[in-house]
Amino acid sequence: MAQGSYVEDEFRRDTSYIEDRIARDGTGEHEWPVEAGRYRLVVARACPWANRAIIVRRLLGLEPVLSMGVCGPTHDADSWTFDLDPGGVDPVLGIPRLKDAYEKRFPGYPRGITVPAVVDVPSGAVVTNAFAQLTLDLSTQWSAFHREGAPDLYPEALRPEMDAVMEEVYTEVNNGVYRCGFAGTQAAYEKAYARLFAALDRLTERLSTRRFLMGETITEADVRLFTTLARFDAVYHGHFKCNRHKLSELPVLWAYARDLFQTPGFGDTTDFVHVKSHYYEVHRDINPTGVVPAGPDLSGWAEPHGRESLGDNPFGDGTPPGPPPEGERVPTAHNPHVGPDGLVHV
Amino acid sequence: MAQGSYVEDEFRRDTSYIEDRIARDGTGEHEWPVEAGRYRLVVARACPWANRAIIVRRLLGLEPVLSMGVCGPTHDADSWTFDLDPGGVDPVLGIPRLKDAYEKRFPGYPRGITVPAVVDVPSGAVVTNAFAQLTLDLSTQWSAFHREGAPDLYPEALRPEMDAVMEEVYTEVNNGVYRCGFAGTQAAYEKAYARLFAALDRLTERLSTRRFLMGETITEADVRLFTTLARFDAVYHGHFKCNRHKLSELPVLWAYARDLFQTPGFGDTTDFVHVKSHYYEVHRDINPTGVVPAGPDLSGWAEPHGRESLGDNPFGDGTPPGPPPEGERVPTAHNPHVGPDGLVHV
Repeated sequence: MAQGSYVEDEFRRDTSYIEDRIARDGTGEHEWPVEAGRYRLVVARACPWANRAIIVRRLLGLEPVLSMGVCGPTHDADSWTFDLDPGGVDPVLGIPRLKDAYEKRFPGYPRGITVPAVVDVPSGAVVTNAFAQLTLDLSTQWSAFHREGAPDLYPEALRPEMDAVMEEVYTEVNNGVYRCGFAGTQAAYEKAYARLFAALDRLTERLSTRRFLMGETITEADVRLFTTLARFDAVYHGHFKCNRHKLSELPVLWAYARDLFQTPGFGDTTDFVHVKSHYYEVHRDINPTGVVPAGPDLSGWAEPHGRESLGDNPFGDGTPPGPPPEGERVPTAHNPHVGPDGLVHV
Repeated sequence: MAQGSYVEDEFRRDTSYIEDRIARDGTGEHEWPVEAGRYRLVVARACPWANRAIIVRRLLGLEPVLSMGVCGPTHDADSWTFDLDPGGVDPVLGIPRLKDAYEKRFPGYPRGITVPAVVDVPSGAVVTNAFAQLTLDLSTQWSAFHREGAPDLYPEALRPEMDAVMEEVYTEVNNGVYRCGFAGTQAAYEKAYARLFAALDRLTERLSTRRFLMGETITEADVRLFTTLARFDAVYHGHFKCNRHKLSELPVLWAYARDLFQTPGFGDTTDFVHVKSHYYEVHRDINPTGVVPAGPDLSGWAEPHGRESLGDNPFGDGTPPGPPPEGERVPTAHNPHVGPDGLVHV
């Protein structure tokens, strides 16, 4: 998902999404009702924006009520595709390309076909691809279906501060790496690079006294930062030239990222093979050969993070999720730290 | 200098050079006499093969008898050029392109115009570009002009072992990084990557008990390994996908490289701006935008290396060279560790 345009050589993400929501008592054209079994979350493990939704769904235990379709890591100019599924067709939606669900809703849909997307299974039409609202709604609108012990990822009392933190994470980091990688000129790149690392330095400051972004408990803000950090050394450092340091050379952020990685829901939804394959094979404009780097060595992700002293309550009043359903496990060959039960073991 | 071809998608360097030598009592068509002031060494600071010659000339104190012309970091498909000089013309040779000196010798010269090259100033014709023999000849043939205290970089007693070490450094490391970066297919790249890091692991083993490759004293073998290591994190790690680890993540090799970097002749001849500019701007086939990364952070090069305990005799019976001549200093803006006297200070 890197639809965008350029303003003075700076990459600007296309932020026009299908803004429909699925809401607790949804009615009407742009508000759909929460309903068990009705929708399918379509993701690609490669994509950081989709990875957010995978993590949140899993932390909240929504697997039994919201099924998940997984696109392959690469896509053509046209669409993400269900090339991992038998016959190249999603078993629930019965379509080969995610684009088919977009077209079902809006024939001639003119914008990018992005993941994550939620599809209405009965009609086969996309409901929404507004990734930022989507995960918050999983927290706030789907609570009737949360598992026992599900954490509160968007606590009301914290929202004003949390929204500001998430805004910074989005504009400066999640998008910041793309601004480096897709810069149209040397000057635009250098500006983007300075902006990215300044933000990472501010986050380092914040995280040097807090175990997680909002304190001693994991929130959606951490989910959003994690998916970029998990891709940093594998992709953004080299491919996007975000190379002042590797994440593994930034002690606070690296320990923070490992802490999350080793928490059920984070590392066990990270597919390094899909991540690398996606960026290096799809972006032929910056990697013409399509060769995917064999590195980096990933062994460090399993090392002790030592951040327990900053807080010992990652799930608040809740508990960690159990192992992922068998059909949804990231294979060990794609993430050396995932065990046969689908969890990261240290 | 990356002339080459592909055999089963593996990059093979074109090793056809002008094999003439400058020898102590040189006579005859392919052997030229050593003579003070007669020749000009043409280099580019960007190029690792030329950087060898810059280091050796400086360690041996040949500056007064063998002048040096410096090409800019980038070149077109045709030739390295003297674009750094006033008017874009080498002040001694009076030519804008190194190719002119090749053509003077061999009209219609069909192969790559490479640095380092030695040019006969009176005739303006290239004498040799055979980089491997060139530096050994500076040690063995030019000894009448060595400075007082010049080290013996190619000691007779060590030559059999040293030739084998240098062969490994050349095929597996100096060339190994190019084999990764220019691999024509995923399979060729992965083979090249495994081969490179296997060699670096063997060198780590060797250097864990020896301060330098041949023992406690610097030799030409160290010069040859250094020029690749100095470019590793700045270029090869990202641009050539040599990314199992950064050099700075390999403790033995990183300390070894820092030790040399902090030795007069090594770090003070390393121009990181030229190095990055060359690779990222010239190789548009693997970096189409030509954007040059702003990283990596270079501060680590000045950190103590702690290798004195492995031997305390880097120059053998000799002494370190003094500061480089004023006109030949790498600017601080191109290497943050170079002081106003042209030396690296820690």
